[in-house]
Amino acid sequence: MRTYLDCIPCFLRQALEALRENITDEDKMLSAMRKVLVYASKFDVRKSPPEMGMLIHRIVREESGCCDPYAEIKKRSIAESLKVIDKVRDTINSSDDPLKTAARFSIAGNILDYAVVSMQAEFRLFDSLKKAVDKPLNDDIFESLRARLDKASSVLLIGDNAGETVFDRLLIEQLRAPKIYYGVKGSPVINDAVYSDAIASGLDEVSEIIENGSDAPGTILRLCSAEFKKVFRKCGVVIAKGQANFETLNNASREVFFMLQIKCPVIARNYNYKVGDWVVTTAESGKRI
Amino acid sequence: MRTYLDCIPCFLRQALEALRENITDEDKMLSAMRKVLVYASKFDVRKSPPEMGMLIHRIVREESGCCDPYAEIKKRSIAESLKVIDKVRDTINSSDDPLKTAARFSIAGNILDYAVVSMQAEFRLFDSLKKAVDKPLNDDIFESLRARLDKASSVLLIGDNAGETVFDRLLIEQLRAPKIYYGVKGSPVINDAVYSDAIASGLDEVSEIIENGSDAPGTILRLCSAEFKKVFRKCGVVIAKGQANFETLNNASREVFFMLQIKCPVIARNYNYKVGDWVVTTAESGKRI
Repeated sequence: MRTYLDCIPCFLRQALEALRENITDEDKMLSAMRKVLVYASKFDVRKSPPEMGMLIHRIVREESGCCDPYAEIKKRSIAESLKVIDKVRDTINSSDDPLKTAARFSIAGNILDYAVVSMQAEFRLFDSLKKAVDKPLNDDIFESLRARLDKASSVLLIGDNAGETVFDRLLIEQLRAPKIYYGVKGSPVINDAVYSDAIASGLDEVSEIIENGSDAPGTILRLCSAEFKKVFRKCGVVIAKGQANFETLNNASREVFFMLQIKCPVIARNYNYKVGDWVVTTAESGKRI
Repeated sequence: MRTYLDCIPCFLRQALEALRENITDEDKMLSAMRKVLVYASKFDVRKSPPEMGMLIHRIVREESGCCDPYAEIKKRSIAESLKVIDKVRDTINSSDDPLKTAARFSIAGNILDYAVVSMQAEFRLFDSLKKAVDKPLNDDIFESLRARLDKASSVLLIGDNAGETVFDRLLIEQLRAPKIYYGVKGSPVINDAVYSDAIASGLDEVSEIIENGSDAPGTILRLCSAEFKKVFRKCGVVIAKGQANFETLNNASREVFFMLQIKCPVIARNYNYKVGDWVVTTAESGKRI
């Protein structure tokens, strides 16, 4: 997905929010905002929005002198999610369709997104989990995912935010493929999960955690490691979580199933969704309108 | 008033809205947005926000090839306001305190502001006029304005938006000073009133219309004509309408009475107002908190 003009003011708002959370000195914030404005003025809008996000959060880390500014937030999100894991697992296992219920909770966890709204996303987690029982999903696509999963010998689940990882683990527990990979960022960006966050969420017990070698939100394949790209190409099924993965992989040359909450009006408008929708889609079915 | 970091994403949103209203070609819009970003990256934040607004709307006019992109909107706003002028005048004249009622309607007209929300501001005019009867104002400051007006031999009322001009005319009808000036922009910017808009609103019948010689929103004195600055300095009372005049004149070296609706959260936060407040204030009483 390309970058739209509406993304530009939104980038600036995101940058300001991120700087506010990590820098107290007003002059430093202003200098960082100036850098973001210069980058934005030269940004190639044929690239996806997360590519600008990557540049912004490099500036945030540089100016704050902190290589993982969201470390505490990520810890808290994982801890909050771990508190409910047993209860959610029971709900999944006692449901009529555990795979689908697990997918719903995995999408519910996608609310823990600090790129979109930075404030205390975990307070909204409980509301999101309550919706997991009956929020409409796209059944056709889900059934075609189920059919693919039945036959797949390997699955790559590409994660998104720390905390959401805990619910992804519950989804993986429902998969039957002999080999399952869980993809994480190569290094910190926003509250996206890195290797240590996946470990803290117990994903090593149910999958092989694989780093993508990049610090971009989403999955910008040309910036990912050769090893990650090989897994991406070879796995029978690829599932990618969250908006940034949709934005960066919806033009990929292989089939990818996306599971996400629609939080951005630009994505909603261009792909015929409403903000607040929970979506299971493929690049094919989620074509630009 | 200086420019705050929160103004930066807001500038970009305003620029995008203004470009969308005046340009259809996406490449032209992108090129204009790049120019705005470059300006913003170099902007001296000690200057007031309307100074950035001036630069943005110069770019809008340059890229759209149109020297008065809001001409039609201004005409419509004036026409809508003229439809109700007789009824509003009757309400003012039959009220217990016609001066104060006229001030209320003049502030009500300040809703016609395309810098803040571009869409069909006149549809909100009717709601705003209904509030004019009982919306709380700052009585202390209003009484000190009344006392000043009683003694003044000359008054300068600095206008803001086209359409609002019609209600400013009704306020002027309540003034007793022998000499009254009505200040307008030197050339078009957003939907701010210029000379011809003041004429269309009938302000020549009740005042001497004076252009300020500038295309900035608000009143950036150092960019105004010598003639305007002389009137500004010499008049017994100066009343300035709207946010941009507050932003640019609240550090002026003479007493200015401001009448405005608070529409911006940055102004609200820094001067202890709430968005939606109707305010009569002076630079002295509206000190930064």
